[in-house]
Formats: sequence, structure tokens, C-alpha cells
Amino acid sequence: MSEMLKVAVLGARGRMGTAAVAAIEGAPDMELVAALGRSDPLDTLVEKGAQVVVDLTVPTSTEANVRFAVEHGIHAVVGTTGWDAARLASLEKLLAGRPETGVLIAPNFALGSVLATRFAQQAARYFDSVEIIELHHPRKVDAPSGTALRTAQLVAKARADAGVPAAPDATETTLVGARGARVSGIPVHSVRLAGLVAHQEVLLGSEGEQLTIRHDSFNHDSFMPGVLLGVRTVSNRPGLTVGLDGYLDLEG
Amino acid sequence: MSEMLKVAVLGARGRMGTAAVAAIEGAPDMELVAALGRSDPLDTLVEKGAQVVVDLTVPTSTEANVRFAVEHGIHAVVGTTGWDAARLASLEKLLAGRPETGVLIAPNFALGSVLATRFAQQAARYFDSVEIIELHHPRKVDAPSGTALRTAQLVAKARADAGVPAAPDATETTLVGARGARVSGIPVHSVRLAGLVAHQEVLLGSEGEQLTIRHDSFNHDSFMPGVLLGVRTVSNRPGLTVGLDGYLDLEG
Amino acid sequence: MSEMLKVAVLGARGRMGTAAVAAIEGAPDMELVAALGRSDPLDTLVEKGAQVVVDLTVPTSTEANVRFAVEHGIHAVVGTTGWDAARLASLEKLLAGRPETGVLIAPNFALGSVLATRFAQQAARYFDSVEIIELHHPRKVDAPSGTALRTAQLVAKARADAGVPAAPDATETTLVGARGARVSGIPVHSVRLAGLVAHQEVLLGSEGEQLTIRHDSFNHDSFMPGVLLGVRTVSNRPGLTVGLDGYLDLEG
Amino acid sequence: MSEMLKVAVLGARGRMGTAAVAAIEGAPDMELVAALGRSDPLDTLVEKGAQVVVDLTVPTSTEANVRFAVEHGIHAVVGTTGWDAARLASLEKLLAGRPETGVLIAPNFALGSVLATRFAQQAARYFDSVEIIELHHPRKVDAPSGTALRTAQLVAKARADAGVPAAPDATETTLVGARGARVSGIPVHSVRLAGLVAHQEVLLGSEGEQLTIRHDSFNHDSFMPGVLLGVRTVSNRPGLTVGLDGYLDLEG
Repeated sequence: MSEMLKVAVLGARGRMGTAAVAAIEGAPDMELVAALGRSDPLDTLVEKGAQVVVDLTVPTSTEANVRFAVEHGIHAVVGTTGWDAARLASLEKLLAGRPETGVLIAPNFALGSVLATRFAQQAARYFDSVEIIELHHPRKVDAPSGTALRTAQLVAKARADAGVPAAPDATETTLVGARGARVSGIPVHSVRLAGLVAHQEVLLGSEGEQLTIRHDSFNHDSFMPGVLLGVRTVSNRPGLTVGLDGYLDLEG
Repeated sequence: MSEMLKVAVLGARGRMGTAAVAAIEGAPDMELVAALGRSDPLDTLVEKGAQVVVDLTVPTSTEANVRFAVEHGIHAVVGTTGWDAARLASLEKLLAGRPETGVLIAPNFALGSVLATRFAQQAARYFDSVEIIELHHPRKVDAPSGTALRTAQLVAKARADAGVPAAPDATETTLVGARGARVSGIPVHSVRLAGLVAHQEVLLGSEGEQLTIRHDSFNHDSFMPGVLLGVRTVSNRPGLTVGLDGYLDLEG
Repeated sequence: MSEMLKVAVLGARGRMGTAAVAAIEGAPDMELVAALGRSDPLDTLVEKGAQVVVDLTVPTSTEANVRFAVEHGIHAVVGTTGWDAARLASLEKLLAGRPETGVLIAPNFALGSVLATRFAQQAARYFDSVEIIELHHPRKVDAPSGTALRTAQLVAKARADAGVPAAPDATETTLVGARGARVSGIPVHSVRLAGLVAHQEVLLGSEGEQLTIRHDSFNHDSFMPGVLLGVRTVSNRPGLTVGLDGYLDLEG
Repeated sequence: MSEMLKVAVLGARGRMGTAAVAAIEGAPDMELVAALGRSDPLDTLVEKGAQVVVDLTVPTSTEANVRFAVEHGIHAVVGTTGWDAARLASLEKLLAGRPETGVLIAPNFALGSVLATRFAQQAARYFDSVEIIELHHPRKVDAPSGTALRTAQLVAKARADAGVPAAPDATETTLVGARGARVSGIPVHSVRLAGLVAHQEVLLGSEGEQLTIRHDSFNHDSFMPGVLLGVRTVSNRPGLTVGLDGYLDLEG
């Protein structure tokens, strides 16, 4: 067996961080060399010889963390939000001078969710109709969900690029809201139901057939396989990758 | 084996009528004695000795047909729409003088749909949240469907009668339509998708669990078992019954 | 507002017991007067004036607990297994001398699951075909699940009582197991999938239509509404009731 | 607008052929130049100037039909079964001498089904568990379905290639058949239900999440978009292509 991969976690006391620490400790090919909280010095990463750092901190500190890692030749897997175009451009410039170092910035580590979005996008041009139903717990404050908005936009773009006409719809009389919200022309329906966690269905239909792509997220453990995949892959993908789907092998 | 039940069909050339004629001819305990179209005389029912007549005509002729049947002691199973409160009251008065004759007026003969609505109504008071998703072919002109409207109203009444508070919903920011139409306070979502026929899901949720009642109608054959059940039962149910669920034995 | 209902929990340190304690403390119409573990004396129930006791202990102690309660005029809601015919008969004899005291023994407190089984049973006679799919986490040691076995038996009995013929099935060539296990003649399919908790679908079909009744249990919180319903109802149902469905109002 | 594509159908009197004739006549970019039955001469294809021929005949005549087309520079889209390795090798040799001519041999023209299989195959390596449920009308004589067998084999191969261990399964006591049939190690469950047509679900699960890919085939119209896609694409894909997925653009 080859040597263990030395991994550090930043934001190790948060909910995601705690789960990541446990997942890395449980991975047979990884060694957790540091689990740092807010006030711990970044120099520890160098002292402990970390090869990959997992950043699960907050928008105000993630950029400095990642830049420190890249400057010290440590690959980074980043689940923190707050990376706008300016930050990404600045990071790419830094990485240009560090051609051997890789950074993955992923807004979503749930493999199933990433795959579901990709499949919906690929299938969208081959069907007459597409609609999205997302279902969440009733404590959620926004509707539709961010994932549903993004899925609708990607699906709409795929259909536009392929020249697919608008889905047929003969609705004449309707109650306000019955046909959902329109996101880039795609109907999106948001269900809020006690007992649920986070679920999404993309329904695609043509005469005589239906294709349904459904993802259910039951708890936060669902993010860990994606984090581990990122940690295992990042050293072989120099430069900046945005989105976990860039690491997936979908050649089938 | 007992004698065959003598059954006649009115509106026998229409789509539903044609299917009913075939179903009755295929039933081992029934004999089709008449299959009448628009211009055929009702006296034929008497001449042929019909015991039960199935009316699948049009709103303008159904009342006269049923009154003729009752006046001649023939039981009636009616799938035609157009029976408002005045017509029903008038029919009940007529039936009061014919205590041995039964009439079933059913807006929906799909057993599965009738059962799904009943179950949703029974379960509604036991869950924190209820929402309805109905899915139809894109040639449908109204949204929500009539069945969804009726289901929402019955569900809402069951919850009100049991004193159930409104479902929790923390939504603060939303796109118009995302949370569906409100029908008696119940969110109803209408999907229109090429390839579909007629489908409905009632989702009920409480902390930790979900109950889903789904009905799929794939084609019009789904109405025939309900029609046959009506024909077999009507002679044992004197007076007026509205709704096929009145004939179902749900004591289980 | 009326007085609070005084409730005690036996087995209060177990997983179910801990959840029950929290649920009772959170109920606006209940006061938790005792939360007893294995070695705590039952006399505490009397001292604290408990009106209802919730027994969530183990098969070896549940009978003595319930008998103690009944002898002291305390109603009992029992979620512990181990009540065979002999124990039930003995308890009924004891209750005969205590006509004002009620006991509910419920193998399943998940309202959704209880309703799903009841609805499947009621609908079974109205469809040509019925099959059951149950889906659980892969740590489960038995297949099919106990709930699926019981559902299949009840469904089969309902069909037999109504004289429904066997479901059509033209299968000639098959791999062993493809068509599931036969439980009282009903095909039952058991899925074991990482990520799942406890789920069951009853599929009912006739020409042109399908009715699906699905229950999802996401976590143990799903049992608490049923426990609270039992606590609130037991004092109005003297004698022995087996099964939470005996407390449900399904007249809708 | 460019010129119309001249298309001929062989096997035009069969069920699939009849549907193909209608679909081609309805396509705005195609002209149906011949619709031939069993005894019609193939020379008609040349006389009418067919550019693409759709073969929907029988295993005993499809090879001769396709060879005739290729020899006359006519592209062919083939839905007939019976193409074994020897026939395919012989056809490839013929095509080598006709580098401008394309042939598509597709066992399945339902776009949704082809996509569902592809997606299942791509996702299989990223989840701990995979199971397949296929649901069909009760007149089907084989279980599992051919599509389910093929999906299971492709899914199993994808997991083996990626070194994924067997799915977890703690089942100790089981009724025969409950856990389905094993196809290359993947559990496959076959439901036969009155009212259904042809449906398949691939369930993929890991800790905390589930991905479900479902395809519903409601009637034979579902094959026509795939046939039209084949007709439109075949002239740009010289040589032999097996499987409609070879024509799909899944780069998304």
C-alpha cells in the first residue's frame, strides 16, 4: 500500500468541519494531520506537512486560507461560499505561478445532487417538456431552492443551445401559482412539508414516455463522499476547478 | 348461477359509451339488452326489460333519461355531468315515490381516484403538512385539475373539522408561483408534461415521516370497473347516491 | 383551558423513552410527572399522581408494569413488544375488574405507517393486482420487513374475503427471485440501500390505472405524534385496544 | 430552408412501421418516398431516390435489406433485432468499401430509456448501493426484462472497472425471492401489475442520499423521436453505429 495522504481541515469545529474530520479519520488512505479552528495559526499546516487542506470556514476567511495553502504548495478543497468572480480571477493568477498545485471550489459536495443536475442538463434537449419539483422541510426561507434555480437555468440553456422550442402548454384558466414559478422559462414547483429534508425531481416528458431524475438528501453525511473524492483527486488536477462535476468521470 | 342482469347503455356511440358497451358485454353476470344513441326512443328500455340503465349522454338529456328510468322502475348509473342542486332535489322527490329504485350519480368512476381522494381526506387531520401535486398532459386547459380542487377542499375541511393548525411554512423570499396555488389554504401544484395522462399525488408529512397517496390514470379503461361496480350495486341501494365512494366497502 | 394531563414514562433512558420524554414535555396539554429507568420503583407513579403511563421498556418487564398501572387505575400506552395471546388474555381479565381503565398496546406508533397499512387493506379488493416494495437501510437483518409481511397478510385476507381472483401474471421464464417473495400469495420485494431508513410502497393496479400508497419513515421522531395521540385518547377508551388504528377516526 | 430528406420505410405495415410512416409524414424536414411491405421489391428504394431507409422488418430479412441499402449508397436506420456478431462483422466489411454510407442499428429507440441506462451506468461507481426495479404489464412472459438485465450488466461492469466493493447487505433471514434476482451481483426486482406498461427505476444510495433514475414508457409513440433522430443523424455518421446512445450529444 502506498503512503497515506496527509490532510488538514480548516473550520474543524463547525458542523461540516466536524463531519469532515470524522470522514478523513475513517478513510483508510488518509491521515488527518491538523484540525484547526478559527484562532489556530495557519503555519500549523506547514509544520504538520499537510498535502491537502479542506477549507470549511466562512466567506470572510476562505480566500486568505486558500492563498496561504497555494503559496505553500498545499492543494485545497473548498466548500466555503463567497467566491465571486474577482476572487476567482485573483486565485487563478496566483495558481498560474504554481503550476503543480490544485484547488477545487465546490458549492455542493453531494455527489448525487451534482450527478442529478448534470443528467438533467444532458437530457433536457431530448424531451418536449421539462419541469422541476423541489421539496424541502418547512423551515426553509427561500423558494425555489438555490439548487432548483441553478438546475432550471442549466436546463433552459441546454434547450436553447439545441434549438428546442418551448414546451407545449394549453392552459387557459388557472389559479395564480398553480403552474409554478418560471425560471428561465422552466416551471419550478416548491413543496414545503414537515418531515422532509431536501429533495428534487426533474421531470422530462415526450409523447409516450417520461424520464424522472430524483435526488434525496436525507442528512449532511451525504456531503462526505464528495469531500473525500475531492481530497483524493485534487493533487492530480493542477489549477483551479469550480464544481465537483469537473472531477467526475462520466465517460461511462 | 343466478340470472343475468339486464343492462342498457344510453349514449352508446360516445367514447365512454363504447367502452361501457364492451365492458358490459364482457361481464359474465350481465346481458346487454340495449345500446342506444341520441335519436333512439327510450321506450326500448322498457321493451327490452332493462333492469339497470347506464347513462353516459350529455348534460342536456341526462335528467330526462334518468327520470324516465325511475318512472319505469329501472335503476340508473349516471356518469353524465350537469346535475346541479335543483336537479338533484327534483330527482330525490321523484325517488321518494319509488322506494325500491336506486340511482347512482358519479362524477368519477375511476375506483383508484375515488379511493385516493377518500384516503387523503381521512389522513389529512393526522399530519402537520399537506400539499397536492397533479400532473397532466399539456393539452389540458385548466389548472389545477377539477379532481385536485375537490381533493384540496375535502382535505382542508377535514383538517378544519379536527382543529388542525395551518401547516408550518417559513418561506420569506419566493418567486411568484413557486409555492403553488392555494385552494382552501392547501398548496396545489400543476405539472403539464408531454407524455403524461392524468396523475395526482397527495403528500402528507409530519416530523420524521411522509405518507404519499398517488393515483395514475393511464387511459379511459380505468373507468370501467367502477361502472360495473355501480351496475352490480345500484339495485341494492334504493334512493339517490352521489359519488361512487358511497358504494365502496371501506370497513376493511 | 382544562387541567394538564399527568403523564409518566417507563423506560425513560432508552432511545424511544428519551424521545417520548421530550415530546411530552413539549406538549401543551401534558405534564411529565415521572421519567423512570430500570431500577426506579413503580410506586413513584402513584406518588406523583400519574394519570397515564407510557411503557417503553423491554419484553421482560412490560407485563408487570402494565398490571401495576391497571391495578392503580392508571391508563397505559404500551410500545414494548412481547405481548403474546396469553399475556393479552390475562390483561383483559384484569381489565374486566377495572372497567374505567384503558390500555393501548401498539406495535407501531407511526401514524403514517398505520394509515398506509389500513388504506392498502381497504383498497386491495378493488384492484386486479397488488405488490409490495419495502426499502430499508442495509443494516437490517430480516427481509421482508415485519411491516411488509403484516401488510401482505392483511391485503391477501381482504382479497380472499371479497372473492378476488389471483392477480394476472404470464411470467414463463424468470431468474430466481426476480418476482419477489410470495407472502400469502402477494409478491413482496425487499430493497436494501445505503442512505435509506424505512420505506414501503403498496402498488395496486387495474386496467388503465394505478394506486400507490407510500410511507417513508425518516427517523424515530415519526413515532411521537402517535404516542401523544395514544396518551390523549386512552382515558376515553376503557378496556384493551391493540393497534393504534383502533384510535384513529377514519370516518372522513 | 434546405431540401427535404427522402425517407423510405421497410416493414411499413407492422405496428412499429405504421407508427414510423406517420412520424415521417409528420416531420417538417422529411418526405416519405416509399412505404414497403413484405412482398414489395427493394428496387423501389432506388427508383424513388430514398436517401435514408428505416428497416422495421423481421430478423430473417433485415440483413438483406440493409446490405441492399448500403450497396446502393442509402443510409439505414435499423430497429429490427437479430444482428449477431457475425452479421455485424460482415456489415462492417461491406461498409469499409462504402466510406460515405452510415448505418445505425438500435435495439431501443426510446430516447428516455437509452438516457436512463447511460446515466445509471455513469452514476454507478459513485454510490455504495445500486438496485433495479422494473415494472411491467402482467402479460409479459420474461422476468427480469431485457432492459433490466442489460442495465444491471452495464452497472456491474462500471462498478467493477472502478473497483467499487459489493453493496452492504446485512440480511440474515429472508424469504426466497425477497431480495430479488442477482444479475452480475446487482439485485433486480420485477413487478407485474395490471394497468402498467413498461417502467424501470434504478436506485442508487450512499450514506445520507439517494439518486433515482426512472423511465416510464406509456405507449409505442415513445419510440418515434428516437427513430427521427436516427434518420436525421445517420448521413453524418458514416460506418456502423450500434445503439442510439452513440448519436446522443451528452457533453452538456
